[in-house]
Amino acid sequence: MDMERTLICETPKKVGEKVKIEGFVHVVRGHGKIAFADIYDRSSVIQVVGGEDLAKLKTQDVVEIEGTVNARPERMFNEKIKTGKIELSVEKITVLSKSEEMPFDMGGEELNLELPTLLDYRTLSLRHNKIKEIFKVQAKVAEGFRKAAEDLGCTEIFVPTVSASSTEGGAEVFEVDYYGHKAFMTQSPQLYKQMLVPVFERVFTISKAYRAEPSVTTRHLSEATQMDCELGFVNFEELLDALELVGSSTLKYVSENCQKQLTDYKVPEIKIPVKIPRLTMREAQQIIKERTGVDHTTEKDLEPEDEREICRWALEEKGSDLVTITHYPTKKRSFYTMPDPKNPEYSLSFDLLFRGLEVLSGSQRINDYHELVAAIKDRGMNPDNFEMYLQTFKYGMPPEGGFSFGLERLTMKILELNNVREASLFPRDMERVDFRFSR
Amino acid sequence: MDMERTLICETPKKVGEKVKIEGFVHVVRGHGKIAFADIYDRSSVIQVVGGEDLAKLKTQDVVEIEGTVNARPERMFNEKIKTGKIELSVEKITVLSKSEEMPFDMGGEELNLELPTLLDYRTLSLRHNKIKEIFKVQAKVAEGFRKAAEDLGCTEIFVPTVSASSTEGGAEVFEVDYYGHKAFMTQSPQLYKQMLVPVFERVFTISKAYRAEPSVTTRHLSEATQMDCELGFVNFEELLDALELVGSSTLKYVSENCQKQLTDYKVPEIKIPVKIPRLTMREAQQIIKERTGVDHTTEKDLEPEDEREICRWALEEKGSDLVTITHYPTKKRSFYTMPDPKNPEYSLSFDLLFRGLEVLSGSQRINDYHELVAAIKDRGMNPDNFEMYLQTFKYGMPPEGGFSFGLERLTMKILELNNVREASLFPRDMERVDFRFSR
Repeated sequence: MDMERTLICETPKKVGEKVKIEGFVHVVRGHGKIAFADIYDRSSVIQVVGGEDLAKLKTQDVVEIEGTVNARPERMFNEKIKTGKIELSVEKITVLSKSEEMPFDMGGEELNLELPTLLDYRTLSLRHNKIKEIFKVQAKVAEGFRKAAEDLGCTEIFVPTVSASSTEGGAEVFEVDYYGHKAFMTQSPQLYKQMLVPVFERVFTISKAYRAEPSVTTRHLSEATQMDCELGFVNFEELLDALELVGSSTLKYVSENCQKQLTDYKVPEIKIPVKIPRLTMREAQQIIKERTGVDHTTEKDLEPEDEREICRWALEEKGSDLVTITHYPTKKRSFYTMPDPKNPEYSLSFDLLFRGLEVLSGSQRINDYHELVAAIKDRGMNPDNFEMYLQTFKYGMPPEGGFSFGLERLTMKILELNNVREASLFPRDMERVDFRFSR
Repeated sequence: MDMERTLICETPKKVGEKVKIEGFVHVVRGHGKIAFADIYDRSSVIQVVGGEDLAKLKTQDVVEIEGTVNARPERMFNEKIKTGKIELSVEKITVLSKSEEMPFDMGGEELNLELPTLLDYRTLSLRHNKIKEIFKVQAKVAEGFRKAAEDLGCTEIFVPTVSASSTEGGAEVFEVDYYGHKAFMTQSPQLYKQMLVPVFERVFTISKAYRAEPSVTTRHLSEATQMDCELGFVNFEELLDALELVGSSTLKYVSENCQKQLTDYKVPEIKIPVKIPRLTMREAQQIIKERTGVDHTTEKDLEPEDEREICRWALEEKGSDLVTITHYPTKKRSFYTMPDPKNPEYSLSFDLLFRGLEVLSGSQRINDYHELVAAIKDRGMNPDNFEMYLQTFKYGMPPEGGFSFGLERLTMKILELNNVREASLFPRDMERVDFRFSR
């Protein structure tokens, strides 16, 4: 009968006992007939001491090692790791899978590769601890978002990504050959989540957004993951309260559950005051003008540098890494956005900015059927292409609104990465699907 | 200052108080100058008593009603609803959104519509309580799956759905125009989840599967939701234990959290014994032959009727609604499936059957690079199309395996629906994307 596997995190409890561990070789250090290797599994890493067999192992070899757990002499303690007071003396090594020579060094604390190399060897670069940590954080962002949405009373929905018409307008769409019919990948779950407000009143979903934008920036992906909420029976103030609650709860959840990763990435503590500052876009532009002398007060949107500047203001003046900007010009937002009844040139829309970048966007929606049809026509679109969506509004639609986060963007900003591609396991853009098209 | 909204489920605590509720009109019963209406919100339903204003309301009107909560006389108690001992006397009605006349009756306990009508009016049919309940259950299936996967130590991953080649082989794929390049919607997260085993060891994901199968059955969707796990450092026995644990935990979670819905659907209690019966496909065929006289013992797969028969056996003989079938012929499974070393004609594969239908499928995978390349060539496919996937196996891949559930299929079987389309909010098939193409 085979010996049972011991997870590496359990080994410190088994000093003096014989165990079997399974994992990957991280590094091997040979010293004549004595060799040391760091072996890791999903739970932890351990120092293994052995002879020539151990010295022969290479980085990324997959091994099963039987041996005895021994206490290290006190002067050899390594306080950085959970297993730093013990080591494993090898008795038997079985190589489960042999690795080829790695194309780059996995041994350092950082993986200093250019982005194209990082992505060309994606299945390898992801194995480096520092890169892996990005996606440990991402998993917690999603989990934190779901908990916050559930606390708001939202029901989880699974909506389609193939649509019969390119309905949202604006950004470019990907066309699909759907059994010989022309169909499109949805730009967001927007229209479907709205259609479900009269069903569940409050809904959330984590789904895909496909944007065929013909540009390469550090902030955009062609296939992104979106975390969406949509709430019925809310007015604009309640909606702002809700988005700020979901945003701050999600970030707090990450702070609490990702301390190691946030420390490794040397990012400052996330600062969220009780009251997140709220400004209209025009107020934000006025503050920027007063602080920098740059007059953008007649611009129709915030430029990326404006977003960074107003976030500096929020942090310096309000002690907040978050700031909510409202009332963007109606023409700059999607057709379903409700114009402000007091001044229809501006809309009941908002963005949540986090450390200089928009990570969330949303609005109160037009819930009146006739106004919605007029808004569609006003944008030069055909209401016939919105038949299923409009069905919803014909048969009773409460006042409602919602918002969505970009999962990769939020992950990028939490860890202060330079490029959103670093926060996507397998990023898609106009030049790359796994590999670059131009290879 | 506006009165604050009271959720309907809170009204029984407020007898004698004035409240404001917001919700949808379910039915209105007029009795001369006295009218009764059932109003519901996301929390509950309440009987409202009023006069002519109330009598004018129509099904699906969205209203805000101020009034006083009164105790009902004991003979008027309705034990079926949470608010059955009270009613609301109207003082003020505000119509927030007026509904057109509904195309069908929403008042009954059942919504007896043919499937095409149910789907043509999807945004309305979903509002019926009995239909809505399907998706309340579906949300709990997903939640239960995630909890089970997390308990197994899996990390949540978000993998792409656009791929450069149609890699999995077998079923038909949808082609996408990707910035002028030919790309494809992934048939499953299979290849990507495997690529992440050396990163996280154990992973899970809920994502989309696109299958351009040119057939219309009651069990297939062109866009389906899949719940996947993939585990490193497991052998076949451990993998079977893991899938049965995830399957039974998910179903138990649904049983515990969806009692009302399961009662409304009149489905029998889900029976899961401590040990789920396991049979090889050949053993199952032998049992079927002995029970029915129908000899399918040389067939290469289980027919739908075989799946139903072996499930009848499992329930009658083992008291189980679940049965695990293993060792399907290697040629009938995908290229990455590991052949049984003892008899390579059969594979280390499995399906989990639930009440007569396969709801989960999976296998031990080939983790040796050279064997995998040979398996790809053996199926007449080109290893060059698998470059990123194969990168994983060149650099150390532990023994591993995994499985995936169809979310809609599982929901369908839990509620014993007749067609998987009923368990998809907006089902896609070769004839329909929201509406039928042939309209």
